[in-house]
Amino acid sequence: MSVLLVECLDRRDLMLAISRVLFDHGFNVVQSQEFVDRESGRFFRRTEFDGAVDSACLVEQNKGVLPEGVAVRVASPLPKRIMVLVSREHHCLADLLIRNQFGTWKARIEAVVGNHLDLGESVGQFGVPFSSGSATGREPVAHEASLQACLEEAAPDFIVLANYLRILSPEFVSRDPSRIINIHPSFLPAFVGARPSQQAFQHGVKVTGATAHFVTDALDQGPILVQQVLPVDPTRSAEAPARSGRDVEQFALAQARQLVLKIESFFAEIGRSFLTDHPLISR
Amino acid sequence: MSVLLVECLDRRDLMLAISRVLFDHGFNVVQSQEFVDRESGRFFRRTEFDGAVDSACLVEQNKGVLPEGVAVRVASPLPKRIMVLVSREHHCLADLLIRNQFGTWKARIEAVVGNHLDLGESVGQFGVPFSSGSATGREPVAHEASLQACLEEAAPDFIVLANYLRILSPEFVSRDPSRIINIHPSFLPAFVGARPSQQAFQHGVKVTGATAHFVTDALDQGPILVQQVLPVDPTRSAEAPARSGRDVEQFALAQARQLVLKIESFFAEIGRSFLTDHPLISR
Amino acid sequence: MSVLLVECLDRRDLMLAISRVLFDHGFNVVQSQEFVDRESGRFFRRTEFDGAVDSACLVEQNKGVLPEGVAVRVASPLPKRIMVLVSREHHCLADLLIRNQFGTWKARIEAVVGNHLDLGESVGQFGVPFSSGSATGREPVAHEASLQACLEEAAPDFIVLANYLRILSPEFVSRDPSRIINIHPSFLPAFVGARPSQQAFQHGVKVTGATAHFVTDALDQGPILVQQVLPVDPTRSAEAPARSGRDVEQFALAQARQLVLKIESFFAEIGRSFLTDHPLISR
Amino acid sequence: MSVLLVECLDRRDLMLAISRVLFDHGFNVVQSQEFVDRESGRFFRRTEFDGAVDSACLVEQNKGVLPEGVAVRVASPLPKRIMVLVSREHHCLADLLIRNQFGTWKARIEAVVGNHLDLGESVGQFGVPFSSGSATGREPVAHEASLQACLEEAAPDFIVLANYLRILSPEFVSRDPSRIINIHPSFLPAFVGARPSQQAFQHGVKVTGATAHFVTDALDQGPILVQQVLPVDPTRSAEAPARSGRDVEQFALAQARQLVLKIESFFAEIGRSFLTDHPLISR
Repeated sequence: MSVLLVECLDRRDLMLAISRVLFDHGFNVVQSQEFVDRESGRFFRRTEFDGAVDSACLVEQNKGVLPEGVAVRVASPLPKRIMVLVSREHHCLADLLIRNQFGTWKARIEAVVGNHLDLGESVGQFGVPFSSGSATGREPVAHEASLQACLEEAAPDFIVLANYLRILSPEFVSRDPSRIINIHPSFLPAFVGARPSQQAFQHGVKVTGATAHFVTDALDQGPILVQQVLPVDPTRSAEAPARSGRDVEQFALAQARQLVLKIESFFAEIGRSFLTDHPLISR
Repeated sequence: MSVLLVECLDRRDLMLAISRVLFDHGFNVVQSQEFVDRESGRFFRRTEFDGAVDSACLVEQNKGVLPEGVAVRVASPLPKRIMVLVSREHHCLADLLIRNQFGTWKARIEAVVGNHLDLGESVGQFGVPFSSGSATGREPVAHEASLQACLEEAAPDFIVLANYLRILSPEFVSRDPSRIINIHPSFLPAFVGARPSQQAFQHGVKVTGATAHFVTDALDQGPILVQQVLPVDPTRSAEAPARSGRDVEQFALAQARQLVLKIESFFAEIGRSFLTDHPLISR
Repeated sequence: MSVLLVECLDRRDLMLAISRVLFDHGFNVVQSQEFVDRESGRFFRRTEFDGAVDSACLVEQNKGVLPEGVAVRVASPLPKRIMVLVSREHHCLADLLIRNQFGTWKARIEAVVGNHLDLGESVGQFGVPFSSGSATGREPVAHEASLQACLEEAAPDFIVLANYLRILSPEFVSRDPSRIINIHPSFLPAFVGARPSQQAFQHGVKVTGATAHFVTDALDQGPILVQQVLPVDPTRSAEAPARSGRDVEQFALAQARQLVLKIESFFAEIGRSFLTDHPLISR
Repeated sequence: MSVLLVECLDRRDLMLAISRVLFDHGFNVVQSQEFVDRESGRFFRRTEFDGAVDSACLVEQNKGVLPEGVAVRVASPLPKRIMVLVSREHHCLADLLIRNQFGTWKARIEAVVGNHLDLGESVGQFGVPFSSGSATGREPVAHEASLQACLEEAAPDFIVLANYLRILSPEFVSRDPSRIINIHPSFLPAFVGARPSQQAFQHGVKVTGATAHFVTDALDQGPILVQQVLPVDPTRSAEAPARSGRDVEQFALAQARQLVLKIESFFAEIGRSFLTDHPLISR
């Protein structure tokens, strides 16, 4: 099963052209969605099909059929390579390690990097390499170097920040803004920054949440991938929101992974607001 | 804006054929979804487009292009005609009357029929005809006759049972099983039949719900259109579930209407399990 | 059924003292909750009981039993008097008018005041007085005067802002910050101010919401009473969030009313963050 | 922190008597709830307090103060001992093992017993004993014997069925019906028995769910502890509900554990329908 993603300015002959390409290649279409964003006038399409073809080949072979300026991408069905960044909180990491071990997602954790050493032993127990770059993991320069070295070796499709509390440098982020995914334990854009569960509790919200989003230079402001919510029990202490916050995070992450690790599914599932802001499929 | 619905056994040239028809007619496609149900091998498509055409014309004009056996339907963008059946509970009816009065849906309530007289005055206050067929509204034969007369006059696209507690005769239901919509105050298939809120309370469920579904001869078993849920407060008395049940019903109905009254949107929004059971678009 | 509310600095003999008062009066307790907020060291209690007594009497008769400085209030079981402020949007108002007409809440709408005339006719149709103070309803001075006159005549327990788009003056608000309730079509504190549904759509959130809260001078920042959420369909246009926003608002308001109009239930249901900020029960 | 649970037929002097006991012992009450179930006329109370006392002592020392026939229990703040039963599905087990390893709950997994050997290695990796009683784990007699032996050694406070597909014998269940907790991947009472996710998909429900409940002889009918729901994506294949079913199960279990492992919290959080059916606190 492959996934074809198409994005370009809308024109009336697009649907026919793409249908022809798929038919000529003999692909069986299983599912397809398309829509035009009226504000931007852009056309988006996502098609699942039985068959395999390289993006470049597809474009090359259909020069006469596909209009100029069409961004076409065929998403690979290979398991995604993942690198996870952590601090001291284990609960998102644990969920990822478990999925990794039992093989319940189409991804493989290549490495975990921490800016603390606390989780090193647990990660090792799962047979996944852990590094920090320093005795404590907390010296910025050594940690950053370790991060870079690890990145080169792991060559991840995605970097997941699993309760990673350090802010990444603009250089690191800017290299590929659609590759780094953060899980933030609040219903963004509410409660940006540190200690969102405590912020939410102080604010007296009746529903708490978690958000998985791409990381950009604007703190906790990147394109939202998925959000989950959970009611707050008002009679509980400040501990309780933190606790239920962890559960909702874990839940959000469980959902996020399914989206996140199939980049090809973003088109249909994450949709317009994300795609129009981020030229995901033309990258 | 029109909506094209297509259903048939899957074949590889379908997408191309339909794309060609839309292109040849000069229609601008705004949004389109299609999928193949692997179990039944059937193909489903729903396409919104700027333009207008009659179903029969479309089929006639494209005899050479569309494969044989394709069920094609172009849904009319006209406001739907609605008939509402009620007993004594007002809360779903009230919501429908309000939407009717303020014109916030693409539908018009042509008539309300009750098997009690209780709601007659309120209905009249909104300028909508009310009938029951008897002094009390409760004599079965007179009521059934009234229902039939009203049906002929109102010529509704849809009949909505808004807390209507009488069971319709098989003859009445079988005439058009995709035309009668019931709202049931439970999370079906749980708590079929009478007093579902009380059943739910006795059962000790932690979440209550409501379901909008098409009416068939099997009580509360017709194809589900939409479901809503709401947490139950366990410290409340039996009254409370009933009360919150009303709210969730009203909410479900609000949602249901948006689906229900745009039959053309069923394809995308209600989807597979419904469509494969019910040949909605070939009717 | 009456409700006793108690708030004060925690002390070890409070529970015993209050139990004694209730026992001595011969009241049957149906339900009771209490908790101590550890941060502020304050004690909160809410007790439903069969019986009736005046707050002042209760305090007077139990001077020796209740500790000094205890704020005691017995909430009246009488229906609450409501004044509703509107602009041009009908959907929250409609829901209130329907409940008013069918008597499904313990409240009575005494008056509706609009800063537009649009909804006047509909309000009249329900037999509720409508005023605006000017030919258009939009001249600030005349409207404010009308508001004030209406307030004096209606003598409401609560003022509900049902999609009222004008910002009330600090003087108006400060008179009784626990009396004015606003319904805001977003998941506060996200998307404060005008056009929250559009803001949410632009931001790309995956879940939309609505919040009922008390009005203070800080725009959309008053204590939160209740919040509701609803998933966003990402393939829809900007209209869709607005539409589903209306439904979620209506739903939130339906929930809010049940809380809002039984001030006595705030203690248990709205809880700590609200109570510690707002000396509701000692007012 | 201890928790006092009280249940008995309602009488007017109960609240005063219990308040006196707590005051005389010098306990600081942190939170307390009580209510009377009007149908059964029974009184329920749950009180969290700073202090420690043995149930038997408390009753003995307050013979004159507490009315006859009052069931009193002080829940121990010790971590609960857990035994987990599994088949071949890992996802609930994995979540429990992770919590166990990272110490994020007040419980300790003493043993895992499987009727298949598949999960043995993974369990061992977490340093938890695994047994099945036979080479394959699937021979009923050997497995049952292993279960019994394990039960005697582990002496668990609770037995959690984490996707355990075998039906326990009535003898096993009847020994302590408030000790065995099952997680069922549907919104009970809908979709009892095998393959509930598939049943749900065939039925066309729009929302899926999971339920944690006590095990009784009636299959999937025991008192409900907690329920979680999740919307269904109608365009997905039958695999998708199964997948999202797993997530919702895991989420439900995460929630269930918090309730389940603090038996003392059942009173407030699980409430009436459970308590009136099951004399939990008088056992």
